[in-house]
Amino acid sequence: MPTYRLHIEYDGGPFHGWQIQPDRPTVQEALQEALATVLDEAPTVVGSGRTDAGVHARGQVAHFETSDSINTFRLQRSLNGLTPNGIAILSVDEAPAGFHARYDARQRCYHYQISTKPRALDRHLRWYLRPPPRWELIRQAATDLIGTHNFDSFCIKQSDTQNRVCTISRLDIVDEDRPHDFRITVAADRFLHGMVRAIVGTLIEIGHEKRPPDDITRILEARSRSAAGPSAPAHGLILHAVSYAPTDS
Amino acid sequence: MPTYRLHIEYDGGPFHGWQIQPDRPTVQEALQEALATVLDEAPTVVGSGRTDAGVHARGQVAHFETSDSINTFRLQRSLNGLTPNGIAILSVDEAPAGFHARYDARQRCYHYQISTKPRALDRHLRWYLRPPPRWELIRQAATDLIGTHNFDSFCIKQSDTQNRVCTISRLDIVDEDRPHDFRITVAADRFLHGMVRAIVGTLIEIGHEKRPPDDITRILEARSRSAAGPSAPAHGLILHAVSYAPTDS
Repeated sequence: MPTYRLHIEYDGGPFHGWQIQPDRPTVQEALQEALATVLDEAPTVVGSGRTDAGVHARGQVAHFETSDSINTFRLQRSLNGLTPNGIAILSVDEAPAGFHARYDARQRCYHYQISTKPRALDRHLRWYLRPPPRWELIRQAATDLIGTHNFDSFCIKQSDTQNRVCTISRLDIVDEDRPHDFRITVAADRFLHGMVRAIVGTLIEIGHEKRPPDDITRILEARSRSAAGPSAPAHGLILHAVSYAPTDS
Repeated sequence: MPTYRLHIEYDGGPFHGWQIQPDRPTVQEALQEALATVLDEAPTVVGSGRTDAGVHARGQVAHFETSDSINTFRLQRSLNGLTPNGIAILSVDEAPAGFHARYDARQRCYHYQISTKPRALDRHLRWYLRPPPRWELIRQAATDLIGTHNFDSFCIKQSDTQNRVCTISRLDIVDEDRPHDFRITVAADRFLHGMVRAIVGTLIEIGHEKRPPDDITRILEARSRSAAGPSAPAHGLILHAVSYAPTDS
């Protein structure tokens, strides 16, 4: 059966996360309902990974299989018409045979957006943080998170995976165009449940001098979520992009 | 009485424009109510100009006078706490004696944001426009709007001003960072009621080849709103900045 790939942007605010669940609006359900309306079949939509309630995506990737004949241009327009306003289908294309949005993903990149001044226009996408943290301490601590580690201490307990080893290839603090706006960019081969928000929450505690910058090594070794800091709020987090091996794209 | 200056960002969505009116939430009213809560007086807040219902601001400037003694840092924080979420007070400072947010403004700059692809995260700030217009026609037409003209044809009739002469110093089409996102930047000494939206709506008709690019001269000469195109939607328009003479700032 042919496989199709979707690139999706969504505002996490109106949804209880990506993954379908009873009696609550989710992105996966909205996409599946729209597909079931357009197609003769009702395919399952498989995302590159889940996002939690309130977390946004600018570059979520998903796939579905169908034997229906599809005009991808028209399907994109139909899906954009049928899904709620908070979801935008950026593209639909036929994927290479056997493409799997989750298993074939090589790298995920998240942005965590922070402002140290109040904001109105993008307040739904940005953690308003006071007082301003000491970013140089955060940059210093971030280097200890880069590389391959067991991230047990940055994972919500009910996570369904036993393998807690991830490789963070990038963890930058970026000054954005506007003064007082900052972005933490984190890229890794995989992320555990709640991992980015736990990392950001912990780094901010370091920036607020509630923990020393060298605390990261101790936290990683503790292998306990309670060793790390609190989770940063969901609404600052955006799944920015998912990368695949060159042959898949 | 000392004069204080506010820089304000707001999401136009929840408000019926800047200017106070009965039984509808407005930005001016929200600011005045917050000031009346904090101060012993209830000063009038004077903006650099009105924005219509649904129009946003990233750099609105306003002033008020009060004889109360004010700590500007604490006042900013109080106002941010007391105003609705869609309003952010970016700064409060004491203005030069006699400063007037409206009369002293030398230049206003608006951004009109367009995307030719559906968007989710900033859908409240961007006109989703299909099909993509021919931007080179728009750029060509825009040059005829730059300079000093009578803008009667781009002004909503009930406008309370008799003087319809404005000087547009800048009218650019800017490619934004993201593909398919565009911004029309318009700067002028003053704007008439509905002027930017009428300009953008007309330019888009030109870009859609419903009018020739040299239609602008004819429209200006007609001095009739019906000669121009329809108004672009309010939610794409942002009052970006207001400039004052150097001695005022």
